[in-house]
Amino acid sequence: MINKQMFEYGSKSSVIRELFSYGLERKKIVGADKVYDFSIGNPSIPAPAMVKQVILELLEEPAEVLHGYSPAAGDPKVREALADSVNRKFGTRYRADNFYMTAGAAASLAISIQALTVPGDEFIVFAPFFPEYAVWVETAGAKLLVTPADTEHFQIHLEAFENLLTPRTKGVIINSPNNPSGVVYSEETIMKLSEILERKQKEYGTSIYLLADEPYREIVYDGLKVPFIPNYYKNTLVCYSYSKALSMPGERIGYVIVPDEGENAQEVMAAIAGAGRALGYVCAPVLFQRVAARCADVPSDISAYKRNRDLLYGGLTEFGYECVRPQGAFYLFVRSPEPDAKAFSERAKQHDVLVVPSDSFGCTGYVRVSYCVSEKMIRDALPVFADIMKEY
Amino acid sequence: MINKQMFEYGSKSSVIRELFSYGLERKKIVGADKVYDFSIGNPSIPAPAMVKQVILELLEEPAEVLHGYSPAAGDPKVREALADSVNRKFGTRYRADNFYMTAGAAASLAISIQALTVPGDEFIVFAPFFPEYAVWVETAGAKLLVTPADTEHFQIHLEAFENLLTPRTKGVIINSPNNPSGVVYSEETIMKLSEILERKQKEYGTSIYLLADEPYREIVYDGLKVPFIPNYYKNTLVCYSYSKALSMPGERIGYVIVPDEGENAQEVMAAIAGAGRALGYVCAPVLFQRVAARCADVPSDISAYKRNRDLLYGGLTEFGYECVRPQGAFYLFVRSPEPDAKAFSERAKQHDVLVVPSDSFGCTGYVRVSYCVSEKMIRDALPVFADIMKEY
Repeated sequence: MINKQMFEYGSKSSVIRELFSYGLERKKIVGADKVYDFSIGNPSIPAPAMVKQVILELLEEPAEVLHGYSPAAGDPKVREALADSVNRKFGTRYRADNFYMTAGAAASLAISIQALTVPGDEFIVFAPFFPEYAVWVETAGAKLLVTPADTEHFQIHLEAFENLLTPRTKGVIINSPNNPSGVVYSEETIMKLSEILERKQKEYGTSIYLLADEPYREIVYDGLKVPFIPNYYKNTLVCYSYSKALSMPGERIGYVIVPDEGENAQEVMAAIAGAGRALGYVCAPVLFQRVAARCADVPSDISAYKRNRDLLYGGLTEFGYECVRPQGAFYLFVRSPEPDAKAFSERAKQHDVLVVPSDSFGCTGYVRVSYCVSEKMIRDALPVFADIMKEY
Repeated sequence: MINKQMFEYGSKSSVIRELFSYGLERKKIVGADKVYDFSIGNPSIPAPAMVKQVILELLEEPAEVLHGYSPAAGDPKVREALADSVNRKFGTRYRADNFYMTAGAAASLAISIQALTVPGDEFIVFAPFFPEYAVWVETAGAKLLVTPADTEHFQIHLEAFENLLTPRTKGVIINSPNNPSGVVYSEETIMKLSEILERKQKEYGTSIYLLADEPYREIVYDGLKVPFIPNYYKNTLVCYSYSKALSMPGERIGYVIVPDEGENAQEVMAAIAGAGRALGYVCAPVLFQRVAARCADVPSDISAYKRNRDLLYGGLTEFGYECVRPQGAFYLFVRSPEPDAKAFSERAKQHDVLVVPSDSFGCTGYVRVSYCVSEKMIRDALPVFADIMKEY
């Protein structure tokens, strides 16, 4: 008898993975350019040239040092460089000691949740949300509560959220720019959210940690500024990843920031180090720790994503699809023309258009359309989207 | 209130880390060449030149493919290449599907233990053992039982082991070549161990998994062959790492092999994939997956370690220290000249010689002396070891 929950996690693939696998098979039959796969969020623009340049430079160093262990929290010089970079961007005053390097945002979240959780704890998320949150919260032994979506603006349904808060609330997970909606939570939303949390912390005499999952922080359009959450709410842990900003998701590199201003910051950082150890992370991959440090200020080339967004958003809304205009990340969250998003996704599939029904994001009646794809595929797919709409 | 166990894991540093940190501080005071730090197991020989060569070649590929996600289990071509390599070495018939790529042996073990464990389960280890096993077993919710050391040959105390087996035994962790003893378990030991496990599985009607932790598999001397455990016992999971064989511990790359011959092999592999997901591993670092695949057959250059072993073992035994002759890894397990190994370690520290007392390895009265250090440091330290012995 093995662990059933782990077996379930491993054997039931996600809807996204299933669609992606279907797409690969289907391409073999009808040809790669005849399948319009909008299912996954794999960056399609290459890593900045600086990434290669830095690797080439680092390879000149003695190999036993270059590829050797770093301290568990990460190379101190890397953490110092990242603190400096974040300070310049957001006016903060972090030191190396506020940073714990991780193998990407998934690790940042799994570790942070594990570090915080005691039996009976609850974590709250905002629909629509990245479905893996449920896995990490359950694995740590906590319970996940879902705030229903604000389907008008895809900001936060604050009243519904407030009703979910209890003395058992250990954490709240926030993801902006949002996967799957593409929306950036406004400063007003963040301020109201912070006010509620501050008030409830006082009322309950507890600490409620806001886990800011920020892999898309740099992927924003129209000159928008993403509010930096710790500047609004003290008990924030920033869970960051270079997967999207530097287009290197396979290299697994990111960090957690534990600001000094948070409650029990030192204890929380120790527990994060402990959770990293307990979950089998020895240190974050060292070569890419240093690549991240050297490339932290390289601007992400999001021009291709922006072109894709404009093209796809413009086309789909012209055909009668309804969709909130995304300001960040690389997803459109399109209202399904029929109430059952799975049925719509299935119909699109008959046209070789692959889009993810929203049910697994905790919100029914939508599909997620990833536009981190080639512009050509979008151009080719648009008439097909138009044909599908005609069937309604 | 945060998770106390995680706080403990993060705030109580290991004896090894404490000694290492002490050494760094002490070097600042008395000079780097006056502190003889034998505390940690960080490979001192550089990665083979092939590692750099392969990275340079891979960097010519399109960056969005090179640094992109791999499937959760790892790049299929990487797994195929590793299966071929293992098959050539050990006469096995593995396929890519038997391999799950991980972020090193620590991740391999944490994931495997999490995948197998149900409440009430027990894991058995053999003293002396790598102390992190306790952390991973406890974190998965299982109990760790320690088989006392066979202090004569540092093989396995089989009778004591047999007495610890119960229907609750889910797994046994074996580490050969051994950290900290440097001993390689003989074919005879492995055969007897397998016989006991087979017999107990039948008696209890359970499956008992043997987790073979093999980061030192290629670090062996005197032409010795390390028995490949799955060839002796079917329910083996191989937990491997390239940290030591390719001298790149910071890059975090390894794998788990789940052989088809084991009980419920497919379910176990699914649970491993699920545990990888649950603990926040998305995929193993992709660049180094491919480096590992291309360098899997590059022989480890262990000549420096062998010279160190001969020099240190020869010197210490000449001065009257007692020590089993190590056949693998890069540790000597030296009997403390006084019963209290901590007191001996403390005395050595007064001479600026840093060696790790064996208590945390589940075995009292010894110190671990890592010889993955420069030959010069060993030569300089030998007279000091002689002086210390004279005090007894």
